[in-house]
Amino acid sequence: MTRFTDTLHDAAYTIWQASHQHPFLTELRDGTLATERFAFYMKQDYAYLKEYAKMFAYGSIKAKDLATMGLFAKLLDSTLNVEMELHRQYAERLGIPRQELEDTKPAPVTTAYTSYLLNAAAAGNLAELTAALLPCTWSYCEIGTAIAAHPGSLEHPFYGEWVEMYASEEFAKLNEWCMELMNQLAEGLPEGELALLTERFVTASRFEYLFWQMAYRMEEWPV
Amino acid sequence: MTRFTDTLHDAAYTIWQASHQHPFLTELRDGTLATERFAFYMKQDYAYLKEYAKMFAYGSIKAKDLATMGLFAKLLDSTLNVEMELHRQYAERLGIPRQELEDTKPAPVTTAYTSYLLNAAAAGNLAELTAALLPCTWSYCEIGTAIAAHPGSLEHPFYGEWVEMYASEEFAKLNEWCMELMNQLAEGLPEGELALLTERFVTASRFEYLFWQMAYRMEEWPV
Amino acid sequence: MTRFTDTLHDAAYTIWQASHQHPFLTELRDGTLATERFAFYMKQDYAYLKEYAKMFAYGSIKAKDLATMGLFAKLLDSTLNVEMELHRQYAERLGIPRQELEDTKPAPVTTAYTSYLLNAAAAGNLAELTAALLPCTWSYCEIGTAIAAHPGSLEHPFYGEWVEMYASEEFAKLNEWCMELMNQLAEGLPEGELALLTERFVTASRFEYLFWQMAYRMEEWPV
Amino acid sequence: MTRFTDTLHDAAYTIWQASHQHPFLTELRDGTLATERFAFYMKQDYAYLKEYAKMFAYGSIKAKDLATMGLFAKLLDSTLNVEMELHRQYAERLGIPRQELEDTKPAPVTTAYTSYLLNAAAAGNLAELTAALLPCTWSYCEIGTAIAAHPGSLEHPFYGEWVEMYASEEFAKLNEWCMELMNQLAEGLPEGELALLTERFVTASRFEYLFWQMAYRMEEWPV
Repeated sequence: MTRFTDTLHDAAYTIWQASHQHPFLTELRDGTLATERFAFYMKQDYAYLKEYAKMFAYGSIKAKDLATMGLFAKLLDSTLNVEMELHRQYAERLGIPRQELEDTKPAPVTTAYTSYLLNAAAAGNLAELTAALLPCTWSYCEIGTAIAAHPGSLEHPFYGEWVEMYASEEFAKLNEWCMELMNQLAEGLPEGELALLTERFVTASRFEYLFWQMAYRMEEWPV
Repeated sequence: MTRFTDTLHDAAYTIWQASHQHPFLTELRDGTLATERFAFYMKQDYAYLKEYAKMFAYGSIKAKDLATMGLFAKLLDSTLNVEMELHRQYAERLGIPRQELEDTKPAPVTTAYTSYLLNAAAAGNLAELTAALLPCTWSYCEIGTAIAAHPGSLEHPFYGEWVEMYASEEFAKLNEWCMELMNQLAEGLPEGELALLTERFVTASRFEYLFWQMAYRMEEWPV
Repeated sequence: MTRFTDTLHDAAYTIWQASHQHPFLTELRDGTLATERFAFYMKQDYAYLKEYAKMFAYGSIKAKDLATMGLFAKLLDSTLNVEMELHRQYAERLGIPRQELEDTKPAPVTTAYTSYLLNAAAAGNLAELTAALLPCTWSYCEIGTAIAAHPGSLEHPFYGEWVEMYASEEFAKLNEWCMELMNQLAEGLPEGELALLTERFVTASRFEYLFWQMAYRMEEWPV
Repeated sequence: MTRFTDTLHDAAYTIWQASHQHPFLTELRDGTLATERFAFYMKQDYAYLKEYAKMFAYGSIKAKDLATMGLFAKLLDSTLNVEMELHRQYAERLGIPRQELEDTKPAPVTTAYTSYLLNAAAAGNLAELTAALLPCTWSYCEIGTAIAAHPGSLEHPFYGEWVEMYASEEFAKLNEWCMELMNQLAEGLPEGELALLTERFVTASRFEYLFWQMAYRMEEWPV
């Protein structure tokens, strides 16, 4: 039986392939990525996470049952109070002072992507929120696993830690929970609703691609 | 110097006094409160908490700085994943089976109060949200402390545990943090904005009173 | 074929019957309703409309197609810029000065009902919003029509105009559009979603009943 | 006395100058703009307006007084039910069939800009909403007036109508109302709040610039 997440994956396939093959990720895999590009990425990703975390807060608000509310609460808490601290420590090891990280102004794509997600969450129901949220966790899981399979990628002095994080079992479990939730919420929905969810998933996937591109090009506001 | 929370306390003084003197609380203090009234309260409070927790989620969304976001996230997580479990255990000791607790339908005042809070949070900014949220934590802190000072109240087999919870130092700290946040957010705001915050605080205080009344009368939907 | 609105009507049947038989409406029909009760109602209804209008604004935000967005926009505009002016004129003829009307503070049930509606709209999708919105237009349509059928009710010097408004073809059309929209949005939805919509409809219907009760009893905040 | 809108204008000055000098607008002024670029702009502007209109709906929700609510309602209604029809007719004269216009998929910048606006409206209060909304009406007013002063620009067979629309007294009045509202809402606010409003204004101004750039480059999603 086809699960709804299979349909979503198919709908975004070419976009995800473009991400996998983006120089930011192929060079990161090969260990040849310029560190200033990665530092740019780290800072924007930090600014991104601060907003992305709010998707979990909206998840707690839009969920109808205590179990789902509680899981979103855990995700929100661990993102803000654990993961972002790990990001700060990692960034410090990469030579980005804590204050510089905190002061990062979101670049256009970061602003665009997080606004898109939060607007989808505010305007829609839990299914719409989950469809928008999913490309981030899922594609990072796929990317982390694919890069980790590449010899030497996990041992890279700068990038190994990043690869490990997203190739980890823990992260895979988080992603599976999101996928499971998506499939549950999509169950029995009419075509029109599924099409809307697919559009949310595809657009968020496109922003994932643009995020890699922005990081590689170190894109700032032109004015 | 007068803090804004002093102004708020003054504005709601007669309402809070009415709560303090409500038979639900004087009888609870004296240990004479009929257990079915308390059981009714516990069940509605459980239904209330499920919605009230969402205020913390909105707090994370509306806050501008990571520290405040992180604290709201902790409150959300501990409410849903710790406190509600404590409520379940407490209720069980009172003879309310877990499933009965979970199945509780919100009574009119519970529905009214939580809808009021969540609508204030959705429509307003963080200051408005905090003003709406504050009467619950603050008045419970005041009530818990006042009752705990009454000889024997902490030893009551049924109600002692409840009194202890809200007279605890931990709960006082949580409340202080909320008050501090309110004072910070109110700083320098023009009269019109402060009047709006006061209205939020006063209306939520009124719903607190109505909640005690509902519990004492065991009020359900009339139709 | 059963339409979803038939299911909704069945689910709220006893509640609607209780409204129809409420002394506020039977006395209004017979022309014996005390004018101070009606004046109380008029003022609270004015405070209600100001918030209820926002449901149409949320409708414009949550709708996905231009036609629906445009219709909600028309409803919002005509409510705020036409109907409320009619209410002001009507109230003046009943001896309620314009300023008194504007200064009306929402009573507990008015606050509860509008908060419930707006929170349902903010947290849910268009189907949820419509289910919450519908009892107001639909039950007023049913009530207006039933009372208009009663000899003499349309000629009553005070209440005739009110009966005429809600028994009018124009109002019936507006209601039909809302019902139509509800049926469209419910089409093909799984059971769980329909149950949620039904809950929204039933709870809003209960608040309609409480509104009549509040008006008859001229209920204010107890503290 | 300096009005807050003067501060906003200063803060975004270099961004607005960059828009004024953008080839899309200098070529439009000189009548040399390639029609396919303008057609691309028209279609994206149509997709933009559909979402932008929702800012007025949020305005009605977030406003506290009936007069402001009513004005936002009028803006919402006239945008969806009058202006967008004018756009459709204009587009038809430019050879864009109605269906093609309706079927326009928002390009990345359109998606980014409207998401940014709607998220600012959902998360903030009326002041924040107005600060985000203002660059669109105000800069169009400035641009329309500047181009209209250029000999021949109003007579251009394709672009004259567009110039006329935004150089019109009616549009100037709408903009003045928005500016007035901004100044009212900013009155007496503390520095921190004003800084937030300025950030909203500056970021929306940047998206205005990116919108001209997108139109000139006819930018679509890269994947």
